[in-house]
Amino acid sequence: MPDISEKGIKMPASPIRKLVPYADAAKARGVKVYHLNIGQPDISSPQTALDAVRRMKNTIIEYGHSAGNLSYRKKLAEYYGKLGIDVSLEDILITTGGSEALLMALNICLNPGDEIIVPEPFYTNYNSFAMQAGVKIRPVTTSIESGFAMPPMKEFENLISPSTKAILLCNPNNPTGYLYSKEELEQLRDIVAKYGLFLISDEVYREFCYDGLEYHSCMELKGVDDNVILIDSTSKRYSMCGIRVGALITRNRRVTESALHFCQSRLCAPAIGQIAAEAALDTPGEYFDEIHREYQERRNCLIEGLNKIAGVFCPMPKGAFYTIARLPVDSAENFSKWILEEFEYERQTVMLAPASGFYHAEDRGIDEVRIAYVLKKADLLNAVECLKYALEKYNS
Amino acid sequence: MPDISEKGIKMPASPIRKLVPYADAAKARGVKVYHLNIGQPDISSPQTALDAVRRMKNTIIEYGHSAGNLSYRKKLAEYYGKLGIDVSLEDILITTGGSEALLMALNICLNPGDEIIVPEPFYTNYNSFAMQAGVKIRPVTTSIESGFAMPPMKEFENLISPSTKAILLCNPNNPTGYLYSKEELEQLRDIVAKYGLFLISDEVYREFCYDGLEYHSCMELKGVDDNVILIDSTSKRYSMCGIRVGALITRNRRVTESALHFCQSRLCAPAIGQIAAEAALDTPGEYFDEIHREYQERRNCLIEGLNKIAGVFCPMPKGAFYTIARLPVDSAENFSKWILEEFEYERQTVMLAPASGFYHAEDRGIDEVRIAYVLKKADLLNAVECLKYALEKYNS
Repeated sequence: MPDISEKGIKMPASPIRKLVPYADAAKARGVKVYHLNIGQPDISSPQTALDAVRRMKNTIIEYGHSAGNLSYRKKLAEYYGKLGIDVSLEDILITTGGSEALLMALNICLNPGDEIIVPEPFYTNYNSFAMQAGVKIRPVTTSIESGFAMPPMKEFENLISPSTKAILLCNPNNPTGYLYSKEELEQLRDIVAKYGLFLISDEVYREFCYDGLEYHSCMELKGVDDNVILIDSTSKRYSMCGIRVGALITRNRRVTESALHFCQSRLCAPAIGQIAAEAALDTPGEYFDEIHREYQERRNCLIEGLNKIAGVFCPMPKGAFYTIARLPVDSAENFSKWILEEFEYERQTVMLAPASGFYHAEDRGIDEVRIAYVLKKADLLNAVECLKYALEKYNS
Repeated sequence: MPDISEKGIKMPASPIRKLVPYADAAKARGVKVYHLNIGQPDISSPQTALDAVRRMKNTIIEYGHSAGNLSYRKKLAEYYGKLGIDVSLEDILITTGGSEALLMALNICLNPGDEIIVPEPFYTNYNSFAMQAGVKIRPVTTSIESGFAMPPMKEFENLISPSTKAILLCNPNNPTGYLYSKEELEQLRDIVAKYGLFLISDEVYREFCYDGLEYHSCMELKGVDDNVILIDSTSKRYSMCGIRVGALITRNRRVTESALHFCQSRLCAPAIGQIAAEAALDTPGEYFDEIHREYQERRNCLIEGLNKIAGVFCPMPKGAFYTIARLPVDSAENFSKWILEEFEYERQTVMLAPASGFYHAEDRGIDEVRIAYVLKKADLLNAVECLKYALEKYNS
């Protein structure tokens, strides 16, 4: 049998899926499992997008432009303009989800062996993309005590070497829910300008900011037009994770030219998904107002409930729909397995994502879990109650 | 400005798109341009696939399984079974087009710096995928005189070194239209078995074989279950290039396990495209009978017409919908530019794909062009007539 490659061997399994067999076994026993582990929203996709797909007139589903449909890119430029992000359609390449945009950005900005600095905990698939591009992640650790705020710039500077080519930020943050302030972004701007680094900004949770706080994009930063690359996606914004339509956006012409060649190699982004994504731009504002209200209420009842449990600590997230909670356990991974395997409360239990999978170093976040609040409030309350009884039992 | 990566700099532009500005200028002058350069079929997508999309019941377009929808994979296994390719659903990973499957296969089978042997001329994007994976293509040249038949195995063996990890075959072939015989495939089998190589077989044109000739898949070869990886796509088969749904298929468990991790990193293949692809499996046989008849007639009139032009030589392709023709010119690239820029016949001209872009070595195929016969017969006849007058004028 021929050997597979080193990359093939090392490509990590998704850590949030490791516990799936235990959840399946619990369900097989008739236990209801509340999925707090995944970020699949339960909100309907916008009607205007669904209608556009159902009314699709094409009789041949042809290749589209490699950079994305022209009409979609034009409309998308207007969408960004309204958010204060001044870009033209030449700055936009439509990709197969935010995933492809991020992998492309890594391939274009870094040579194999180069380093990218990422605040941790971070979205676990960054590891997979870094491995595919052959680049090294250097984490800057953020702490639950500070609510996962931006660490002092000195910690970034300590990691910068001739191999450092970029900083990758997720804002609002998955998995922490942290929303970076304008001041924090300006500090990063100074660093990338000083050291000539790329700033790759994953802003796919842009529409999810709470408490009246304003979202600031790295694309608004002055003087770093050639440094900033925005990664975007329609998945979460419109609850259309399955359409696989994202974007890579930058004013750096060398990057857009190269990205177009990457795009040409895979011909085009999904055509029907682009029809849905373009129509989704007409989604009325009320859709977001309602989602906003709904998520903020879910967040409030979740965080309040979690912090009432003895020994649990959970900072208040300001964006996205995730939070990281510290549990009074030695190993959140063992507990997350136990709660599926050996626990139930009124025929119910909870599936958590152990947070260690979101840290680069193996010894970090071992008593933390990531919780997504994509369930209805009543379900979240039940899930928190389960968790409370489970922790009592586990620790007794 | 930060420097982009070496890969970013070197990623080639699509050679078949280089002449697009000249074609656009011709159209702007009011000249009709016959596109013989691209493989976008003019055949309608199957009604059953279009209907499935239009009747889609989902109100949330959710993430699907990373390996592809279960129902689709089950049905796809049956489709392969009917073709004599015995695979189970565990052997199948649904990908974002054949493109993603091929890139994944290269990443899993080869380390950066490793080599893959490919008969040339070959599909130009193989270069882009090889560059993304950091692997080297070693071409075995096939010749227009032999109709692009499989070269003697000695030529493959001459290239095999400790860095050689795989052979990549496209069957039926894009760009040559060559259909490999069972005997030729068995010769390749012996080589991959002898040297422990992967055999990556791109069979996306499977349904397009002419003159009653039988198609043989590398998946049917005995004794090389762990060596063979099938790359497939729904793009051409169902004239749905835009849905971006393909597959990576192999009985090698180490490869499918690793491929699943690659798939998890990008979450899922396009969800709406998978709905179309699954429904397309119910396409009635008459759809293919008609396409088959249509393409065979187009091929016959194209090849006959081309060979009637003084100095043109074009072997009869047996599959796919491309052919390579040798023109009586020094540089097919210059001629292809000239015919768009300076020539017209009755307000018409032709866009060709210079074949040099399909060869690895720069000095090969310089008097050859690739022609796709995806236009109606009347248009093909007009295009051939244009070409005849153009060559007369160009050479006078």
